[in-house]
Amino acid sequence: MARIAVIAGDGVGPEVIPQGVRALEVLSARRGLGLVLEPWPYGADHFLATGETLPEARFEALLRGEYAAVLLGAVGDPRLPDHRHARDILLGLRTRLDLYVNLRPVRLLDDRLTPLKGKTRREVDLVVFRENTEGLYTGAGGRVRPGTPEEVALEQDVNTARGVTRILRAALDFAHAHGKRRVCMSDKSNAMTHAGALWQRLWRELGEGYPELERRHLYVDALCLELVRAPEQFDVVVTSNLFGDVASDVGAAIAGGMGVAASANLNPESGLGLFEPVHGSAPGLAGKDLANPCATFLTCALLLEHLGHPAEARLLEAAVERAAREGRLTPDCGGALGTRAVADFVVEELAR
Amino acid sequence: MARIAVIAGDGVGPEVIPQGVRALEVLSARRGLGLVLEPWPYGADHFLATGETLPEARFEALLRGEYAAVLLGAVGDPRLPDHRHARDILLGLRTRLDLYVNLRPVRLLDDRLTPLKGKTRREVDLVVFRENTEGLYTGAGGRVRPGTPEEVALEQDVNTARGVTRILRAALDFAHAHGKRRVCMSDKSNAMTHAGALWQRLWRELGEGYPELERRHLYVDALCLELVRAPEQFDVVVTSNLFGDVASDVGAAIAGGMGVAASANLNPESGLGLFEPVHGSAPGLAGKDLANPCATFLTCALLLEHLGHPAEARLLEAAVERAAREGRLTPDCGGALGTRAVADFVVEELAR
Ligand SMILES: CC(C)[C@H](C(=O)O)[C@@H](O)C(=O)O
Ligand SMILES: CC(C)[C@H](C(=O)O)[C@@H](O)C(=O)O
Repeated sequence: MARIAVIAGDGVGPEVIPQGVRALEVLSARRGLGLVLEPWPYGADHFLATGETLPEARFEALLRGEYAAVLLGAVGDPRLPDHRHARDILLGLRTRLDLYVNLRPVRLLDDRLTPLKGKTRREVDLVVFRENTEGLYTGAGGRVRPGTPEEVALEQDVNTARGVTRILRAALDFAHAHGKRRVCMSDKSNAMTHAGALWQRLWRELGEGYPELERRHLYVDALCLELVRAPEQFDVVVTSNLFGDVASDVGAAIAGGMGVAASANLNPESGLGLFEPVHGSAPGLAGKDLANPCATFLTCALLLEHLGHPAEARLLEAAVERAAREGRLTPDCGGALGTRAVADFVVEELAR
Repeated sequence: MARIAVIAGDGVGPEVIPQGVRALEVLSARRGLGLVLEPWPYGADHFLATGETLPEARFEALLRGEYAAVLLGAVGDPRLPDHRHARDILLGLRTRLDLYVNLRPVRLLDDRLTPLKGKTRREVDLVVFRENTEGLYTGAGGRVRPGTPEEVALEQDVNTARGVTRILRAALDFAHAHGKRRVCMSDKSNAMTHAGALWQRLWRELGEGYPELERRHLYVDALCLELVRAPEQFDVVVTSNLFGDVASDVGAAIAGGMGVAASANLNPESGLGLFEPVHGSAPGLAGKDLANPCATFLTCALLLEHLGHPAEARLLEAAVERAAREGRLTPDCGGALGTRAVADFVVEELAR
């Protein structure tokens, strides 16, 4: 039995997550996976009603290993413009569970989905390894004379040898284990020299242990340009929290947009994992049956992989690819179907 | 008379800058612009020979207003992997001359140049306003226990109300003056909350003074995605130093690559300006007659505009557009010509 905490969250989360849950339940029943999906109520409504983001007891249950994974839709709500509950839940889970690997595949479901001329599924197929616990996401910093014409706002970029080492190693190990030849590390060491020196040093030191891999470095600006110009250059990209945030969105763009972007937040040592579609709450789309459920399905495939069910992960991916091939997609991907109709197709594929 | 200091610099700089100089000289002679182009020797060779980056006396001459502008090719050399001379010269000029506006147009020379399906010159036409004197480029920060497994590297993101105000205002004023309706401010206020609060506050406060403009906000990850998905949404983008670095490279990607990306570094109050193609020294291309001179020509057009010669700027742009239309381009843009052959075509156009 594997318990999975499910936080549908805000905006389109409650539209797409139930579809992912359906897919997981169908697969679990048919293939005897023993998944138990447990809904958790956290999100903007809960926060506005109770003042609670994600309760301490929940964090502790997760840290004790009582759940095999968390499936999260999205957190973020226009009524809460300071993003506090969203940061508390999403960044709280990432850092408190020490999920230092944010793995974001960039893969085309179908050739027609890329906005790039002449690129196909062959050319768009890489994985971004984003550091997920430090960098510019720690909240360290502050404001001097806030609200005045003399205000100075500081944000601290924190890079530890421990943090950088483990994400570099995770990416290199992944490449090694999955037969991916080329690993590109990206930083901005020509301008951010302190952080850059650390990333460069550890990249050099660790890289030597992987002579079979082709290691390459690009500044983050060049990386983003090259992802658009010639994505076929990349198998694995590894970078910091902030640069991974941006590079994975550029990756999403070339793979057909936010509607198909999946992510896994992992700690390979503890085995804890948080799985979420990258798209966020997208309040403008909510309640209109317009949200693309593919990102959630692909995220559920990553979850299945994580639970040790690669065959079932492939089944789910294949079902989504079939939907894409047949154009049974939402408008963001050029289709004419609603969230539920796409999901029905995918789930029926699984049930066949 | 207008004196212009010309630093060809490193790598491909000495191949493209002389072509820009030729174009400026032809235009100056034919249209009586009185340009005096003065070569300065700074770059990697000079640094290696003398230990000198850009001498104090030069900075002072520039600060005294003895030059109408600086034209810079690129600085950066594999023999100097710590980038010290490059940062001293490029970032030194930006900060010591207080060139707080880094203006980077994203415009297609010809429909065929964009890698994006179905986009044309109509859809790809915007300007990035990048803050150019603070943010993550100040060098503030340091390393604790460098070289050890316990190293911590810190990089400080410094945002001042003064610095943020003036770049926001520059972008808003530019939009107003040039009839550009839509201005998008981009930050990462959902994760970088201290810096974000300042950008958000000033954007709100200043924006109110421009009721005729359509003001919009996007997180930088979403901005980069949208630039690839639907660039027609944007007229003017304004953002921080680091985010502008990345967004303008994504912009370059959708407009045909580094070979055509121009930039102006400006201080609207002092009138000082530094003009450089965005591509950098590109050591791998150097000495092969492969570098695309278009970025330099378009940069020279920005320089002419800055000097108060908009008609001549248009002539130069038109000549480059003609080269693009006729496919007389270097290989990076799908052509088969060398640097010199492209430049000959453009300069002959100007001389006709
Ligand atoms: C060379 C580097 C420091 C520079 C920058 O980051 O500003 C370059 O990428 C640019 O965009 O002009
Ligand atoms: C919501 C936001 C804080 C988050 C991030 O920046 O990590 C999101 O953009 C993502 O990529 O998961």
